[in-house]
Amino acid sequence: MQKFSNSSANGRVYLDNNATTPHSPALMSRWHELIDIFGNPSSIHQDSRLPKTILRETKQKIAELLGCSPLEIIFNSGASEANSSVLKAVFYSADKLRNEYLISQVEHPSVIKTAMYLQSQGAIIHYIPVSRNGEIDIDFIKEKLSAKTALVSVMYANNETGTIFPVNEISQLAHSVGALMHSDCVQTLGKLILNFQELNVDYATFSAHKFYALSGTGFCYVRKSAKWIPLIHGGGQERSRRGGTENIIGIAALNIVLEQLRNTEVKVNEMKRLRDLLENLISQNISDIQVIAQKAKRLCNTSSLIVGEIDGETLLMTLDLQGFSVSTGAACSSGNPEPSPVLLAMGLTRAEAQSSLRVSLGWETTEIQVRQFVQALTETVHKLREINLSEKKSVYGHR
Amino acid sequence: MQKFSNSSANGRVYLDNNATTPHSPALMSRWHELIDIFGNPSSIHQDSRLPKTILRETKQKIAELLGCSPLEIIFNSGASEANSSVLKAVFYSADKLRNEYLISQVEHPSVIKTAMYLQSQGAIIHYIPVSRNGEIDIDFIKEKLSAKTALVSVMYANNETGTIFPVNEISQLAHSVGALMHSDCVQTLGKLILNFQELNVDYATFSAHKFYALSGTGFCYVRKSAKWIPLIHGGGQERSRRGGTENIIGIAALNIVLEQLRNTEVKVNEMKRLRDLLENLISQNISDIQVIAQKAKRLCNTSSLIVGEIDGETLLMTLDLQGFSVSTGAACSSGNPEPSPVLLAMGLTRAEAQSSLRVSLGWETTEIQVRQFVQALTETVHKLREINLSEKKSVYGHR
Repeated sequence: MQKFSNSSANGRVYLDNNATTPHSPALMSRWHELIDIFGNPSSIHQDSRLPKTILRETKQKIAELLGCSPLEIIFNSGASEANSSVLKAVFYSADKLRNEYLISQVEHPSVIKTAMYLQSQGAIIHYIPVSRNGEIDIDFIKEKLSAKTALVSVMYANNETGTIFPVNEISQLAHSVGALMHSDCVQTLGKLILNFQELNVDYATFSAHKFYALSGTGFCYVRKSAKWIPLIHGGGQERSRRGGTENIIGIAALNIVLEQLRNTEVKVNEMKRLRDLLENLISQNISDIQVIAQKAKRLCNTSSLIVGEIDGETLLMTLDLQGFSVSTGAACSSGNPEPSPVLLAMGLTRAEAQSSLRVSLGWETTEIQVRQFVQALTETVHKLREINLSEKKSVYGHR
Repeated sequence: MQKFSNSSANGRVYLDNNATTPHSPALMSRWHELIDIFGNPSSIHQDSRLPKTILRETKQKIAELLGCSPLEIIFNSGASEANSSVLKAVFYSADKLRNEYLISQVEHPSVIKTAMYLQSQGAIIHYIPVSRNGEIDIDFIKEKLSAKTALVSVMYANNETGTIFPVNEISQLAHSVGALMHSDCVQTLGKLILNFQELNVDYATFSAHKFYALSGTGFCYVRKSAKWIPLIHGGGQERSRRGGTENIIGIAALNIVLEQLRNTEVKVNEMKRLRDLLENLISQNISDIQVIAQKAKRLCNTSSLIVGEIDGETLLMTLDLQGFSVSTGAACSSGNPEPSPVLLAMGLTRAEAQSSLRVSLGWETTEIQVRQFVQALTETVHKLREINLSEKKSVYGHR
């Protein structure tokens, strides 16, 4: 590869920020500084000084953000590692009488698939239902919680629909039977004002590339009293809780972006304004379109749509050709062979999931982009519906 | 942190390349290109195109380098993850009658500590001895291998002494009893001409930051027929063998550096010339100094020294102040509380390990740097020995 050319990205409108985020402008402006960062933090000579300082300062910033001790933070490669680590650490350290797990049905695959693996190893998994309106079934949790429960895992905000779950309430229920509480908080930073200590969880997981830093970097909150077994063994890094030379460029990038999180409230208000504008314009211009869990407590940046009579993949592809990046829960010839398990778990029909479109705004999304997108969406939906209609007519015509 | 200032690195001589390597000049010159690389490779819109291409091309380059199929390569966060993954994958998938593991005594902590963890879960671990001369005990392997052996894990080259082990011969022995073979190849790329297919291993592990790319990026070779269970579950990344959004900046950096590996032979010859010069100059200028396993098959870049009557930490610190970065197997107040287990396993006394110094050259090491280093080492050793001597005299004087 002679040059990493991303010329096709020029002028595009990126509305898929729940999948990954672009590098923050602050990170871009300091990109050249990253080039000088090298050295193994585990060395004891002076070339380890800069990486050591970056590790320490970044961890301190995270601790301040979450209101916890820096000792409660473990750097890792991202939330899939962290989620796998938490579930396996609890499973392999829990006493044999605590062998049951409560996991919401709409968790990220890194939680669901780890749970399925642990099920194959003897764990009993209860999947907590979530309604079409985005409400988690608290009664189900109360019913299943017992002295046998090892862990409850409920994400703070869902990546596909943006719905926010009452993690604090669920933590209290979990703790009341002596179970541990985990929350996948990947979709929170940069999208809501996180009052982390109120969540009262034992484990929480974060990924840097979901808030304008780099993929391959993440961190896990592990409460001091909570059990831990390393998933990745190695040198004494992270107080022997996670082996491997630290991803120091990724952590330095995180350090830069953490500064930007101080402006989260301003960003959240603006994203909410634009998201509401988006949904209002859509409802004014397009018939037979629903916003999933519109009335629920939701992230400020996410609109999960069901566009009647339209195939989500076709819609995504058509918008893509016009320069708009969005996502779909539809089964795709080029992506997932099945419709989104999250949408199906929430009680949508396969046809509805097949007509889904996720629009997720970011810090750099502008009102002009939102208006351009709605215009393109409106025209595309009308066109596709006309084609559908004429195809139906032509089928009738051939009879 | 206002600016990542690495000013202290200016003018320093870095001779700790087995710990981590500086960014290659090729990577530095293309650093600005990395800034534009963003997008989630799992998305299906155009913003996923560049990261998808980078993933595919980089994997193809690795496959060409190793002479394997791209499908046999799994990207991950580095060799500690990979080593933990391999051992756990074999342990959790092996049938119950195959519960024994042969691991060399001088493996990296990510192998040794994973083995110790699996021992706590019921595995039987046999540690293969390695002699002072760097020879692995083949007779021990033959004696312990049986139909109960699940896996043999022997690194290709040791990080502390540079000794190279006969992996191919050990693979044949392992396979003869139906066991699987793993080799930690972290110290090989850029330091020897790797004829990977000759090794005939089922698993091999690599870390990008050991050959001039970035920490937090690595890859694992898994032979098509070999067992695998993901350590990190998640989306369908890496054909569902390793979840988590790929570290795309790290993989792009790896892509650049892989090009440079075409020049490995030239680099190896030059490092060998400088390493031999270093050892000759040292033996001419300093008395009572040994090169560990000097006669053994060794990496071209590594000199592991025992400097008689000198404390390794004091020596390292004094050289550090003069601008030279090296490493020691000594117990350090600021580093490891115990002397190197590798050196002790090779039959060195604690006193010898406490007097150890590792010098590991890199692609950018120059003859001038080597000569400067030997001069500084010579002066420092003489000075420290004089101090030792006068302290001894002064002790006698006080009697």
